[in-house]
Amino acid sequence: MTAIVLVSGGMDSAAIIGLAAKKYNDLAFLHITYGQNTAQKERECFEKLANHYKVPKHKQKIIDISFLRQIGGSSLTDEQIEVTNFQGDSDQIPSSYVPFRNTHIIACAVSWAEVIGASKIYIGANEEDSPGYPDCRPSYYQAYNELIKQGTKDGSVSIETPVISMTKSEIIKLANQNQVPLELTWSCYRSNDLACGTCDSCALRLRGFKKLNLKDPISYVNS
Amino acid sequence: MTAIVLVSGGMDSAAIIGLAAKKYNDLAFLHITYGQNTAQKERECFEKLANHYKVPKHKQKIIDISFLRQIGGSSLTDEQIEVTNFQGDSDQIPSSYVPFRNTHIIACAVSWAEVIGASKIYIGANEEDSPGYPDCRPSYYQAYNELIKQGTKDGSVSIETPVISMTKSEIIKLANQNQVPLELTWSCYRSNDLACGTCDSCALRLRGFKKLNLKDPISYVNS
Repeated sequence: MTAIVLVSGGMDSAAIIGLAAKKYNDLAFLHITYGQNTAQKERECFEKLANHYKVPKHKQKIIDISFLRQIGGSSLTDEQIEVTNFQGDSDQIPSSYVPFRNTHIIACAVSWAEVIGASKIYIGANEEDSPGYPDCRPSYYQAYNELIKQGTKDGSVSIETPVISMTKSEIIKLANQNQVPLELTWSCYRSNDLACGTCDSCALRLRGFKKLNLKDPISYVNS
Repeated sequence: MTAIVLVSGGMDSAAIIGLAAKKYNDLAFLHITYGQNTAQKERECFEKLANHYKVPKHKQKIIDISFLRQIGGSSLTDEQIEVTNFQGDSDQIPSSYVPFRNTHIIACAVSWAEVIGASKIYIGANEEDSPGYPDCRPSYYQAYNELIKQGTKDGSVSIETPVISMTKSEIIKLANQNQVPLELTWSCYRSNDLACGTCDSCALRLRGFKKLNLKDPISYVNS
């Protein structure tokens, strides 16, 4: 049985590799890039993780959906829109929200699943990670599974979101339990070099490690 | 109120322009290309239709999702797979089926709709046109509307499929009633020059005109 894991290079998707590897003997890794600020660093992390998990070359795929930059509407796809600092937990949709992004990403996985006959798609979507992102809610994934049932040849593929309701620190704990190499992941929205420590994504990651009294294995500007 | 019309360059999407134009004073045209065999011809038709309907340049968008060729699995995206001749009406999924294609196409429209504040997306999906395509069934569009509700900022965009249950001849009639220039459309899966007349798409188009005792305004190899 084959499972496709959507590996962004971030911590959440790394954590779910550990889970998928326990359940499926055949893993395919899919990385979606879209010309976001830190695309290069995230791609490097994907490649290192694929090597670490010994995923054969034909089961690794990188798809470029940078047409999202033609649509814009987000600080991640439009340089005119500023990457804001973490505003604390709030229900407001942050400037980093890329309109309907996860639908594009999952659609790539579903198309590939139909071709290679995979039955599961693992995605590290996480509510805490994405405060206010409409495409990170459980109800969105329920609706997506129904769409797949209606819109594919045999309707047998489905999405798994094992960390959707976990806190960042729970995800770190899970990753550590499964020996996931978090030093090979990247979360910063701003930098490809040293993580900024202050964007939404860095702030949540650092808070997660702090709660566990652990040191984040990656390097930050002010550390 | 703005409506986005997915204009492929084919006859069905041209017919729905006529309907959208009656209901919405502000139309935006979106064309999706993916390196299919007849991409060049379809794009030309899109541009001619956009000119005909006087859609301003900033309301015209062409998005290239040719990463679908990296996934393959269809005679339209993999040159190793043959474009088959029309097999008659059947429930079998033809070789031209591009896995989960419409999900990618509509996702582009939804992302754009969120950015420009459009409230409707018109698509010329048609069951007869696409015998056995799972992503041309009404139940698929119901599921997609639910996905949009769950996965967008304010959940207010929805998809319209006004010709989904029409026969080809009904679509031609509708287009003619609304003075849609069918001479500016293209349906052939094989050729960019003279339409082949024998692929699934040509065969259904020709049958539609024949039923109405009308002559198709485009040129075919054997006519």
